[in-house]
Amino acid sequence: MDKIIDGKKISLEIKDELKEEIKTFKTKPGLVVIQIGDDSASSVYVKSKQKSATEVGINFLHIKYESDVTEDEIIAKIKELNNDSSINGIIVQLPIPKGLNEKRIINSIAPIKDVDGLTYENIGKLISNTTSLISCTPLGVMELLSRYNVEISKKHVVIVGRSNLVGKPLINLFLNEDATVTICHSKTDDLKKYTETADILVVAVGKKGLITADMVNEGTVIIDVGINKIDNKLYGDVDFEEVYNKVSLITPVPGGVGPMTVAMLLKNTITSYKIMNTSK
Amino acid sequence: MDKIIDGKKISLEIKDELKEEIKTFKTKPGLVVIQIGDDSASSVYVKSKQKSATEVGINFLHIKYESDVTEDEIIAKIKELNNDSSINGIIVQLPIPKGLNEKRIINSIAPIKDVDGLTYENIGKLISNTTSLISCTPLGVMELLSRYNVEISKKHVVIVGRSNLVGKPLINLFLNEDATVTICHSKTDDLKKYTETADILVVAVGKKGLITADMVNEGTVIIDVGINKIDNKLYGDVDFEEVYNKVSLITPVPGGVGPMTVAMLLKNTITSYKIMNTSK
Repeated sequence: MDKIIDGKKISLEIKDELKEEIKTFKTKPGLVVIQIGDDSASSVYVKSKQKSATEVGINFLHIKYESDVTEDEIIAKIKELNNDSSINGIIVQLPIPKGLNEKRIINSIAPIKDVDGLTYENIGKLISNTTSLISCTPLGVMELLSRYNVEISKKHVVIVGRSNLVGKPLINLFLNEDATVTICHSKTDDLKKYTETADILVVAVGKKGLITADMVNEGTVIIDVGINKIDNKLYGDVDFEEVYNKVSLITPVPGGVGPMTVAMLLKNTITSYKIMNTSK
Repeated sequence: MDKIIDGKKISLEIKDELKEEIKTFKTKPGLVVIQIGDDSASSVYVKSKQKSATEVGINFLHIKYESDVTEDEIIAKIKELNNDSSINGIIVQLPIPKGLNEKRIINSIAPIKDVDGLTYENIGKLISNTTSLISCTPLGVMELLSRYNVEISKKHVVIVGRSNLVGKPLINLFLNEDATVTICHSKTDDLKKYTETADILVVAVGKKGLITADMVNEGTVIIDVGINKIDNKLYGDVDFEEVYNKVSLITPVPGGVGPMTVAMLLKNTITSYKIMNTSK
């Protein structure tokens, strides 16, 4: 099974590294998750973040609002947290109830504490390749490739899926590392024409079985960001069994990119902590 | 010569349209250009902006600083202009003298008045596909394609050049119109492999003769953003004479994308004027 990119293992390594690093800090970093409403999947995600944060030594604060809370109330709380020097990371668990202006709420987070990398300022900084907090899932993808020593410079990277959260930030992360990048999506004609030319193929659509063996070249590296829950079982976007023999490396689902997202959230919190405590 | 995308002509049409629109406004829109130092090319560009702005009925203010001005002095002036309701657009003529922090100066411009589309907030909004002021040259490229009825949806667009000012914003503008996009650059291996698959090829590198006839397919639409001045004559990045017979449409240099940039600056100023005067 040496073709497997083991995100579970890497994420544990990263957490161990962060834990050691935090031991050298004078104070504990602080991370706040704001949850609005009662989405059950969200509650699971928040618990998982809480568990991981606590394990590495981050103070975790869970702020929960009923779904009838007003936008202004949330923003007032965020502003209070922006000014609280014990807090280094602030995230709003998505999705939030309809009727609340997500963009306005997210953009009230101080960019230095925006550990999900979702404010306009941090997205703009990513494009300009200036230091910033980068969205956790794309950052996790890059970290996996780096830890498996996958060469990116001059390679042809094909990204399938143009979401603001994954596909679009990845374009810039790969460009920054000198890859030639193609981005495909639901409106792409003849998807195979592009995927079969990829040295590295990243799939982030959310459609089980989208990528089949005939669509990839021998030796491709595949990163499967898709998570599809069917009959309580998780699948990626790539037909793993069928594709496995052709590729040189591939992430499984579950256990690939998924565990990296939380690890990168913790890493971003530490990054923010370090910036906040050196710029003083 | 019906394969020529005539940017000169289109830019005049746009200016006529803007002139008519401004006649219906209660007050004149205001545009400020801040110039620092004595770069002679910059002085030419500023004069050209002044001439066009005045022609369409925009109040044009030229603020000039010596190159030893401090960053704080410029930023104080920008803040004053941010608060001046008669001013709708503020641009800093680039390049500015070394030693001044360009990013800090640009990002002190209120995003609503950032008619060059260079603040982190406006770049971030472009990526998120929320309304915003978009950088003038990329916007000019899209306007040309639109006025020549070039279909973009489902087409393969290949962009050569990954600059923050042109290449990167274009990725998102084309994605927003459902193109499949590939971005190449100086580190791309075998550039021809990508350019010959393009339905629409945009070249923005600044290297005379970079794209030769053997690198493009029959029927391609070519947008040449390059401007190379050699012995006082202007050339694009595309070998125009050689490529002309193969393509279906092509922008000349000069007279292609160049004239569109100023037209889009005026258009952005009007956009900002309208937003400022309806949100009151």
